[in-house]
Amino acid sequence: MQVFIEPIGKLINEFSKLPGVGKKSAQRYAYKIISMSDSEAQEFASAILNVKKKVHYCKVCGNFTENEVCQICKQRDGKTICVVKEPKDVIALEKLHEYKGVYHVLHGVINPMEGIGPNDIRIRELLARISESEVEEVILATNPDVEGDATAMYIAKLLKPLGVKCTRLSRGIPIGSEIEYTDDVTLSRAFLERKEV
Amino acid sequence: MQVFIEPIGKLINEFSKLPGVGKKSAQRYAYKIISMSDSEAQEFASAILNVKKKVHYCKVCGNFTENEVCQICKQRDGKTICVVKEPKDVIALEKLHEYKGVYHVLHGVINPMEGIGPNDIRIRELLARISESEVEEVILATNPDVEGDATAMYIAKLLKPLGVKCTRLSRGIPIGSEIEYTDDVTLSRAFLERKEV
Repeated sequence: MQVFIEPIGKLINEFSKLPGVGKKSAQRYAYKIISMSDSEAQEFASAILNVKKKVHYCKVCGNFTENEVCQICKQRDGKTICVVKEPKDVIALEKLHEYKGVYHVLHGVINPMEGIGPNDIRIRELLARISESEVEEVILATNPDVEGDATAMYIAKLLKPLGVKCTRLSRGIPIGSEIEYTDDVTLSRAFLERKEV
Repeated sequence: MQVFIEPIGKLINEFSKLPGVGKKSAQRYAYKIISMSDSEAQEFASAILNVKKKVHYCKVCGNFTENEVCQICKQRDGKTICVVKEPKDVIALEKLHEYKGVYHVLHGVINPMEGIGPNDIRIRELLARISESEVEEVILATNPDVEGDATAMYIAKLLKPLGVKCTRLSRGIPIGSEIEYTDDVTLSRAFLERKEV
């Protein structure tokens, strides 16, 4: 005999598909849904369907948008392009309210181990954008890991001949952290890239 | 300017309503939904709606069921009733595959601080069940906390005059744990309720 009746088991199974959600959490979420009013559950389901129906990629930068071209591409100065791996990186940077340029979402990074080459991510689209408009600086804001570094290097090499300035976010000890607890790689990197004060 | 576009913000908000889910997790879940295929998202939404449409309370025991009376009430021996606070307690006990009797879900416990009295939980229904059929034992499996204990005591007092045997799950040091790390209340309770070997 099954422990859960079918509709509950099915919902637990769906919640288990979310990242980092195990059986136990999925069960709690399912019980929460059962305890919701019909209209609350209806709204939850609609939110899921709506996001799939309304959210597309911006045809310029590749970020999420409800329109053909996103608000950032429409309103901002296009002279600086910040290149990121994923849409969530745009969110992280936008939260700062500091950067006033536009973005370019690669939707991945070069990763030979997983068979992802330069043609599998939106590098071609980036080159097209740069050739079509006047771009002064490209900020390569891919993650500071092997794949992110390799992708940034690759793009920088392609852009150098075009006379576009390429920059990369600085790496080092995070603000507010302690040297004692900083990992070896970060610490030696911070040492190597030390700056005159 | 908002950081999230409206449909994504809405979905993040919905996920934040789930127990223990913060903004950051809700955001990860929302991005997972966006990355799903249309049919996968459709299935997720349907699972939510189905659970609300199909799942009811068993009119006998109060547990979740798709029918009027649940499978456990239909198939099991009704001479032993295990009284629990919530449907999820039934799941925890059913997973053991040891108990062969039926259940009675109270949907709460007596909690004067929150204004929940004996009439707000399914005690009346329990008494009706016992007066209508031959019940030999009632296992009071509410949680071993103040409210759970008080509720069990209250029910036991009501049932004693009816000649029904009332039992309560044993409390003590959890199997596999260490005395050194057992909390004071549990340890002193285990000491008090020590058993001859």
